[in-house]
Amino acid sequence: GTLNAEELNIVDFGARPDDGSDDTRAVRKAIQACQAQGAKRLVLPKGRYDFYPEFATEMYFFISNNDEGLKRVAFPLVEMRDLVIDGQGSECCFHGFINPFILDGCHKITLENFSVDYARPFHSEAIILGHDAEGMDVEIREGFPYKVHRGTLLFTGGQEEDGPLTTVSQGEIYGSSHMLEFDTEKRETAYLANDFYFSPVNGYPAKKLDGRKVRIRVPELEGVPGNTMVFGPNHRNFPGFVVSDCADVLFRNVTIHHAGGMGILGQRTHNVTVDHCKVTPSHGRMVSTTADATHFVNCTGKIALTHNLFENQKDDATNIHGIYVQMAEQSGSDEVIVKLKHHQQHGFDFLRPGVQVELVHARNMMTYATTTVKAAERLNKECTKLVLSSPLPDEFQPDDVLAEVLADSEVTIANNVVRNNRARGVLLNCRGKTIVENNYFHTPGAAILFAGDSSYWFEQGGVRDCVIRNNTFDNCLFGVWGKAIIDFKAGIREDKEISRYDKNIRITGNSFRVFDQSTLLNAYCVDGLIWNNNTVERTNAYPSRDKPQPPYVIEFCDNVTIDGKAYQ
Amino acid sequence: GTLNAEELNIVDFGARPDDGSDDTRAVRKAIQACQAQGAKRLVLPKGRYDFYPEFATEMYFFISNNDEGLKRVAFPLVEMRDLVIDGQGSECCFHGFINPFILDGCHKITLENFSVDYARPFHSEAIILGHDAEGMDVEIREGFPYKVHRGTLLFTGGQEEDGPLTTVSQGEIYGSSHMLEFDTEKRETAYLANDFYFSPVNGYPAKKLDGRKVRIRVPELEGVPGNTMVFGPNHRNFPGFVVSDCADVLFRNVTIHHAGGMGILGQRTHNVTVDHCKVTPSHGRMVSTTADATHFVNCTGKIALTHNLFENQKDDATNIHGIYVQMAEQSGSDEVIVKLKHHQQHGFDFLRPGVQVELVHARNMMTYATTTVKAAERLNKECTKLVLSSPLPDEFQPDDVLAEVLADSEVTIANNVVRNNRARGVLLNCRGKTIVENNYFHTPGAAILFAGDSSYWFEQGGVRDCVIRNNTFDNCLFGVWGKAIIDFKAGIREDKEISRYDKNIRITGNSFRVFDQSTLLNAYCVDGLIWNNNTVERTNAYPSRDKPQPPYVIEFCDNVTIDGKAYQ
Ligand SMILES: [Ca+2]
Repeated sequence: GTLNAEELNIVDFGARPDDGSDDTRAVRKAIQACQAQGAKRLVLPKGRYDFYPEFATEMYFFISNNDEGLKRVAFPLVEMRDLVIDGQGSECCFHGFINPFILDGCHKITLENFSVDYARPFHSEAIILGHDAEGMDVEIREGFPYKVHRGTLLFTGGQEEDGPLTTVSQGEIYGSSHMLEFDTEKRETAYLANDFYFSPVNGYPAKKLDGRKVRIRVPELEGVPGNTMVFGPNHRNFPGFVVSDCADVLFRNVTIHHAGGMGILGQRTHNVTVDHCKVTPSHGRMVSTTADATHFVNCTGKIALTHNLFENQKDDATNIHGIYVQMAEQSGSDEVIVKLKHHQQHGFDFLRPGVQVELVHARNMMTYATTTVKAAERLNKECTKLVLSSPLPDEFQPDDVLAEVLADSEVTIANNVVRNNRARGVLLNCRGKTIVENNYFHTPGAAILFAGDSSYWFEQGGVRDCVIRNNTFDNCLFGVWGKAIIDFKAGIREDKEISRYDKNIRITGNSFRVFDQSTLLNAYCVDGLIWNNNTVERTNAYPSRDKPQPPYVIEFCDNVTIDGKAYQ
Repeated sequence: GTLNAEELNIVDFGARPDDGSDDTRAVRKAIQACQAQGAKRLVLPKGRYDFYPEFATEMYFFISNNDEGLKRVAFPLVEMRDLVIDGQGSECCFHGFINPFILDGCHKITLENFSVDYARPFHSEAIILGHDAEGMDVEIREGFPYKVHRGTLLFTGGQEEDGPLTTVSQGEIYGSSHMLEFDTEKRETAYLANDFYFSPVNGYPAKKLDGRKVRIRVPELEGVPGNTMVFGPNHRNFPGFVVSDCADVLFRNVTIHHAGGMGILGQRTHNVTVDHCKVTPSHGRMVSTTADATHFVNCTGKIALTHNLFENQKDDATNIHGIYVQMAEQSGSDEVIVKLKHHQQHGFDFLRPGVQVELVHARNMMTYATTTVKAAERLNKECTKLVLSSPLPDEFQPDDVLAEVLADSEVTIANNVVRNNRARGVLLNCRGKTIVENNYFHTPGAAILFAGDSSYWFEQGGVRDCVIRNNTFDNCLFGVWGKAIIDFKAGIREDKEISRYDKNIRITGNSFRVFDQSTLLNAYCVDGLIWNNNTVERTNAYPSRDKPQPPYVIEFCDNVTIDGKAYQ
């Protein structure tokens, strides 16, 4: 303990910076002391701290859009109140299969002034040497240990094998099941590069060559010699920060160099601010987090992302959405078994008595009723049996979906830099007021995507009040993830003439720099969109693609005006 | 419900035999009713019942020598008292990733008169066509669906793919990481066949050929054309019956055709009887359970295996042992952090206040002290912090191990047939009275093994009173798993001159049929062994191996007599 019970110092609990020793137990003790004493601040004096799974706290956790599991957690913050963790510029280095931070049921937490990294990242990187009809030769970069055993390339933790292989052998395998080519010079996904997916494997058919060179025996592989092949992990087990069922959480001056999953994942949380943070790779690595930089699911209150750098993450900068469950089986007039369909949503318990829900036709995404949950019995992580406060209406159809009415929600995305990542910039799927302003986007896919679907990702969207202003869209769309720089693609399969999923959008004062005649705006099933005072400038940043595209594609929309000109 | 509350019938809860429909929810309701009404019998009228994971009860479970995980369980019996489940000759067929039975904290349970099988087993089988310097060609048997995608052979559930591959794709993969050749005609492991292990993979480098033929591109593979290659699962997630922290459990006339793991696993349980049961493959499959037929860990009271058939399981017929934990870190004179070292023992919580424990040197397996657990704090599934009732003695050394003193235990293995499985017959590692009589063994390895070690499997053994009488050992040792038909191999690395791990063994009236000059008895670090009135007969069942072996190998033993002749 310290004299001032308001502030505790992890060194007083046995943490030793800069020596490589495991500081996990010190953190556990310090957190327990914070809770016991009601301390308001926990300080990590500037230095490097190391965290190993061996003695870490364990908890089974369901993490939306990442992978559930029994996790070892370095910073398990459970039902904490009113605490600042101040890293004072420290580096937190994680070793092996350990989760950095899980916040569960906390109120008013600030995390500030430290960085998170892994000694061995969950993805791997190699330089492409060439390819032919038999496969591709690569040279695996230092820092990404691997082995080729009996015809399979497996990435590893670099540990020595202990003991002979037996029926129960387990190795520290860094499983991988997909590849993506990056431009080594530009440090971004290669021009028009596409994901190369395998059926769920953990390694690749391969042959060892000299040194760190390996021949991957997959004839379909292509890539430019000298470019970097990134081998993506076959899991999202290790997101950087999980914020679950919390309120009033602030990230300030936190840097995430790596995570095996998303950087920050918020779920069922009220008010999250991410301010002056960075998601950026370390040690010359091509990739930072192996999935989205940030992601928010069924959150309420205000989500604010301000003054951040999100770069080289292997998916979007953010996605703020709800979750649809499928109404799998009606078991009574007011009873229905609902099912979480996407496996990375399993265990997402948001259906509790009193929750207001909307009933939606899957085929046209139209809400046809709202009601309230009267009782919920969880059968397992997929299925929950609901009793509703009113009978299912006549419109109910099998495979309809249901979601929480997330009325009280608001999003501000301002003054961020988003660049060099895989896929899109920001996915806007929040019903409350959404402002996207003064951001810089250089993304291979759509910079801004309005999504929502009820047949594959089961993500609830549909903006109602959205402003996109004074942003710079700098040579976006050099990849394959999107039809337009600002793209709408609600999963509406029928009734397009009447279904209007996104509403009331103003796009104004933005600057578009484009390397060919890209589509600036692709609007689909929108009601109310104003486009004005945006500028477009041509560049030579990339080769032009096949054929020029129309700047505005407006399909199945009402009340759209482009610089004063009405569409439809 | 029924008129007679003493007996319930699952048909009354919605189960429908013989129609392929999912009976999982009916069983759940029936079990709840048994508990609510205190019913004494639950009857499954003769028929075929089907069980799917979709609506099954879920529980996280640690299962010794099998794999932990969040399990879907068809028959979750938790804290039940005094219940008979009578299948009346029914077949229970399981589909996909579901566990048949978990008994947790139950007393006086009888399971009788039914069989357990899986529609798609967790292993796969193929006929060997031939092999050359590039690899082996096999023809995969019907009933074992698979695909070859981008150079990898993956076994599957046979479902259609749904949707495109993405970063989060999951398929129903039946992961496999090792192979073993079986003699198709004899329906047993091939003569002197050895396991062929891969680093932890879930599929194999391969190329699709015509029909169900596949070329496995692994040059080292060998096997006799026409023989059966068995692809073992890379997990033990689905043992047939788990009996955990129970008392007085009886299996009678239960047949286990398949399990993805062990058939029956008992842990921390008092009194288990397995009588007139069978572990035997169905549908012409070569393999029944993919691991041991039965296995008992830290059990007390009486373990009785009588009148059973254990055949074609992919490991031993039984192994009855305790668990050693490593004393990983002393944190005070009476405080030590202990660690479960073998990953399939993780979560095995046996160290509770009041438990008597022995302290053992890992290097020589000698017990140097006994004491009692005063307090236990579980850090995670591997590590527990113990406070002992007395200080650690001076003899304590890092890496010593600790185990429960399992004084009250007794084993009877009588009138069983054990044959055609992988590896050994029975592993005897129980301190209490152990009787093995009137059994028939035809095993590729040792028929009887006395094991125990503190450096790899961490299984506690050391018999004190063991009788082996009137058994038939019929052409055992045609494989690679053991040096003798009755084999001792305690993991004693030092002090062999004084360490005596197994004591007081009588081997009498047994009949040995041998196809070459095998070692009948290999005794090591034993004190007290009498061998008499055993007969030996030569056969021509298999070719002789390289060189004749001495019939008795006696090393580092005291008080051994072979038919009246004293050794040493
Ligand atoms: Ca340290």
